Amino acid sequence: MINLLTHTAKFEVNGIVKRIVLALGGNALGHTPQEQLALVKKTAGAIADLVEDGYEIVIGHGNGPQIGAVQLAMDFAAAHGAKTPYMPLPECGAMSQGYIGYHLQQAIAFQLQSRGIAGHAVSVITQVAVDKNDRAFQTPAKPIGMFYTRQEAQRMEKEQGFVFMEDAGRGYRRVVASPEPVSIVELPVIKQLVDLKNIVITVGGGGIPVIETEHGYRGIAAVIDKDKSCARLARDLKADMLMILTAVEKVCIHYKRENQQELDSMTVPQAKAYIEQGHFAPGSMLPKVEACLSFVEQTANGVAVITSLDCAKEALLGKTGTKITKA
Amino acid sequence: MINLLTHTAKFEVNGIVKRIVLALGGNALGHTPQEQLALVKKTAGAIADLVEDGYEIVIGHGNGPQIGAVQLAMDFAAAHGAKTPYMPLPECGAMSQGYIGYHLQQAIAFQLQSRGIAGHAVSVITQVAVDKNDRAFQTPAKPIGMFYTRQEAQRMEKEQGFVFMEDAGRGYRRVVASPEPVSIVELPVIKQLVDLKNIVITVGGGGIPVIETEHGYRGIAAVIDKDKSCARLARDLKADMLMILTAVEKVCIHYKRENQQELDSMTVPQAKAYIEQGHFAPGSMLPKVEACLSFVEQTANGVAVITSLDCAKEALLGKTGTKITKA
Repeated sequence: MINLLTHTAKFEVNGIVKRIVLALGGNALGHTPQEQLALVKKTAGAIADLVEDGYEIVIGHGNGPQIGAVQLAMDFAAAHGAKTPYMPLPECGAMSQGYIGYHLQQAIAFQLQSRGIAGHAVSVITQVAVDKNDRAFQTPAKPIGMFYTRQEAQRMEKEQGFVFMEDAGRGYRRVVASPEPVSIVELPVIKQLVDLKNIVITVGGGGIPVIETEHGYRGIAAVIDKDKSCARLARDLKADMLMILTAVEKVCIHYKRENQQELDSMTVPQAKAYIEQGHFAPGSMLPKVEACLSFVEQTANGVAVITSLDCAKEALLGKTGTKITKA
Repeated sequence: MINLLTHTAKFEVNGIVKRIVLALGGNALGHTPQEQLALVKKTAGAIADLVEDGYEIVIGHGNGPQIGAVQLAMDFAAAHGAKTPYMPLPECGAMSQGYIGYHLQQAIAFQLQSRGIAGHAVSVITQVAVDKNDRAFQTPAKPIGMFYTRQEAQRMEKEQGFVFMEDAGRGYRRVVASPEPVSIVELPVIKQLVDLKNIVITVGGGGIPVIETEHGYRGIAAVIDKDKSCARLARDLKADMLMILTAVEKVCIHYKRENQQELDSMTVPQAKAYIEQGHFAPGSMLPKVEACLSFVEQTANGVAVITSLDCAKEALLGKTGTKITKA
């Protein structure tokens, strides 16, 4: 293991970066099991590079295409006479965690083993509690599952209390809320595993959304932003860094315009000003920057980085990526 | 916590039973998410009773109806134009682990919390390695997924190398092998979690079957008997007891005949004689007794018990269940 202190060029917080929460995009994992199996190999290699350099890595990941496929298949089969049960969204989320976690832990374990690194990769089924009074529940807008006719949608609205929206002439699609993550239910166990130097895969798809009731937690149809859950996780695990991996190497202002400019770094006030000026697209870069801000603002020395998987190692050496710091 | 040594009537091994691997049946978890949510509550209550009495509980579980529904829905949707990917069996197994583990850990955590018991419930996505030369691969017989026409089956045999069998006039169904569990891939992490007094949910559906390759583990279409995986787990965790929970309170000989007789106990030689005499049905009680035998024979003081969920606590007091001991 390399002594981090001897790498003066290395990205440092108070001289040392040790624990990093990596947020992986669900889209980066492909749309089929074959694609995912191939893509996790590359991801696992990049992660093992970081572990080899002495970093503690905790992995949070998205699940957009995966939960989409599962929910769609379960909806479709139930609606077309396959005699399979209708599967609620939280259960589909749990399934996607199993599916993605299985591939990730298999690929990461192989990388660790073949490099002679001690430690294990483990996927923990993870619930994330949300506030049942979160304002987001008043304006559900995240489409999930299959398209229905107007008639079908109206019937399901009546019978099941679902909310539907018409989707660009393609039919009606159920929409759910995207509330804020309040707490990670399995945090104590995740902490134990991270402290024992395991590579933990958690908060898949932002976590299975649950609300607290007098009978314990109960799943609720919602989608929690995975970057926000990763920020929460990073804060709770006292991580030194939140690293959000996405399709681009650096965050841009004036994105896709003539005067596009890649950013090496942003302070919290700068990032807020860029948000104010509308530089970051909602549902795309905006929630990533917001997640970084929440981590950096709520920790003493936390630093956030947005970059691509390919650039993760270089970003830790301070050579690329967009770094978000307090000041 | 109760001092086990003061309970002289308690089921004991060398004066103390501490670590128990519980094997839960997949059928006992119902066929729909609603059924499962209701049934895990009862299961969680029974488990919390044992934890409250000072036992360390590790949970293995089946997934027959659950993986069946997932595989069927994914097959059906892919085959009928839902534009969802075909999902291989190991991935469906991983999904079922997420789905069942989520419900179990939620219900158990509530029971622990409401009784003021420290400790957490956690589901670990678990792979179980099998031998690629296991003779079972020569005679696949376990039906999975949906029914196909003869034509469809022939095409899939050709294109995908699947094996099909006609199922009682209802059409053709894919069959897979049921190889022996060789090792539990995530064992080191499971051990850590159990040692830290967590209630670990693992080897769901017998584990995701994988074979070792030069590029690490690779999922394979197979179904591992969950009781055999639980026996393997109990041995690896140096458990004092393997407890297989099923539909009946005690194992019977002359089952469902006039001279039916419930057994309070069997020694290994007695159990082998009963097997020889054909008392236990293949695919039903036989694999359970065999799993018990493998645990009892391969451990110094291990005891196995077969009983129902309702009787678990009483069985530990030595009042019911069928106990399998070395001699």
